[in-house]
Amino acid sequence: MKTAPDISDVRAARERIMPHVHQTPVLTCGHMDALAGARLFFKCENLQKVGAFKARGACNAVYSLTDEAAGAGVLTHSSGNHGQALCYAAARRGIPATVVMPENAPAPKKAAVRGYGGTIVECAPTTAAREETAARIGAETGAEFVHPYNDSRVIAGQGTCALELLEQVDGLDAVIAPVGGGGLVSGTCIAVKALAPDTLVHAAEPSGADDAWRSRRAGRMLPQEDPRTIADGLRTGLGELTWPFVSRDIAGVLLSEERDIVAAMRLIWERMKLVVEPSAAVPLAAMLAHPEPFREKRVGIILSGGNVDLEALPFSLAPRDRDG
Amino acid sequence: MKTAPDISDVRAARERIMPHVHQTPVLTCGHMDALAGARLFFKCENLQKVGAFKARGACNAVYSLTDEAAGAGVLTHSSGNHGQALCYAAARRGIPATVVMPENAPAPKKAAVRGYGGTIVECAPTTAAREETAARIGAETGAEFVHPYNDSRVIAGQGTCALELLEQVDGLDAVIAPVGGGGLVSGTCIAVKALAPDTLVHAAEPSGADDAWRSRRAGRMLPQEDPRTIADGLRTGLGELTWPFVSRDIAGVLLSEERDIVAAMRLIWERMKLVVEPSAAVPLAAMLAHPEPFREKRVGIILSGGNVDLEALPFSLAPRDRDG
Repeated sequence: MKTAPDISDVRAARERIMPHVHQTPVLTCGHMDALAGARLFFKCENLQKVGAFKARGACNAVYSLTDEAAGAGVLTHSSGNHGQALCYAAARRGIPATVVMPENAPAPKKAAVRGYGGTIVECAPTTAAREETAARIGAETGAEFVHPYNDSRVIAGQGTCALELLEQVDGLDAVIAPVGGGGLVSGTCIAVKALAPDTLVHAAEPSGADDAWRSRRAGRMLPQEDPRTIADGLRTGLGELTWPFVSRDIAGVLLSEERDIVAAMRLIWERMKLVVEPSAAVPLAAMLAHPEPFREKRVGIILSGGNVDLEALPFSLAPRDRDG
Repeated sequence: MKTAPDISDVRAARERIMPHVHQTPVLTCGHMDALAGARLFFKCENLQKVGAFKARGACNAVYSLTDEAAGAGVLTHSSGNHGQALCYAAARRGIPATVVMPENAPAPKKAAVRGYGGTIVECAPTTAAREETAARIGAETGAEFVHPYNDSRVIAGQGTCALELLEQVDGLDAVIAPVGGGGLVSGTCIAVKALAPDTLVHAAEPSGADDAWRSRRAGRMLPQEDPRTIADGLRTGLGELTWPFVSRDIAGVLLSEERDIVAAMRLIWERMKLVVEPSAAVPLAAMLAHPEPFREKRVGIILSGGNVDLEALPFSLAPRDRDG
């Protein structure tokens, strides 16, 4: 679906997905406010179904299908949160979901897709192989391809997160969302522009995957090249549907360094008692590194997800005596 | 304060502490429901101020004091969540807080008390030394001693957790709370009896610290002897104010084994994206080990706290390659 969605699409998405996703809580933390010199409101999409905001877009895409189209199932080539979310949404609707994954994909990602009832089709670990395989399966089965972000149904679904946030918290001066492919940021722009036009939307991006920042500077969409960041959800580049929002509707892109991402992630675990994945810590990390625009302001921070492998945390967790 | 509190005390506590504590969210999880064969509603006191329900009782005690009494400060000898909560409440009211701690207390606990603005007085690592030191400081300074559970103001404060839960979720068949000293369970009994008299209250206790279970069987309050459990918040014995609730008002005590506590804790981290401490996992562990009474029921589970040392998790977290 390649036309830009608007606020009516976001509102329709909200009605459509309401039975299938959580209205996630907004939490505050005095310690974080003191650190930031601002009043922070954390929208907890790590507590969302499937552990990430991606459940919103995937459910909107799946439940937008006619019964006839749905019968042929859905298809994607994202092995991350979107892939799992699509499988979740499809299972709820009782239709098949296929995820095309590189044959060297990590076992936990394969297990997660299967856990949500999805079918995995493996391919060679190249972008070309992935796209060819997805195209072939789509042609063979008639399954509807749902792109992780370059899809207006997905963008509209992700916009329901900010729609909720703006209803839950009055008078936000700014909202900060992480940017990878740009689906969440684009949906956030739509909701904020309609409901709170004076509120600024900032995108937060790892320095090691800074295509949004470079694209805005260049004035045209540049590809993501050789991303190097622990924030695995943000290694993708923008798409033709999300670039206009990123180029036109946001106040700016805040960059964050790897060590700040890890530190922010740990801070959220320790002080807020929330399990968040590295990508979800990028807005806080960026905001703490660039505090000036937010001083004394009311700032919404979208904690985008909590899907992290507890066996592979980025901070050292050496076993030691509990009372040591 | 040595008289048993009632529902009017719990309601008054709620008004009193409302500006100082969070109304914590209630979360659900389809995966947990499927595992349990029941509909579970998790009351997230790990997301409470200070990371534990103890903020409720401590705030109620501190804000119950007259200005004159408050001026002399407050005092306790708990170095755990209650000690930190009392320091938090005192700092909010702008009065001094003193925590008597054994000289061999872990450094992180001392740092936490100081972090909340409390003063530490060290003593020899015996119960007698702790009580003598607290009594001496109380006599010298006039500071009000606030016991972690054997105090009606504290019990009434803890009861506000169930009061909220019963307003947030209709038609609960049962509520399960962990039992250590019994303050949370006692407050829960008061709220449930008044608001939802058909709802059963169960206490959950580690097998390695089973004084509540043994006391009920014996028909009299037995001491906690040599507790051995990872659930460090539940190593204390009952008190004269909490034993009547435990003996009279609960449906029963559910015991849980150490390995089940660790497994339940990990399950909550992984599936619910919540950082909980071992004590907070005891109700789920006990419920999953004794599922029969809860089959198909609506069950409230109090996640009591999230204060766990990330450097000393009870499950193995060996660093390894993120894509391995």
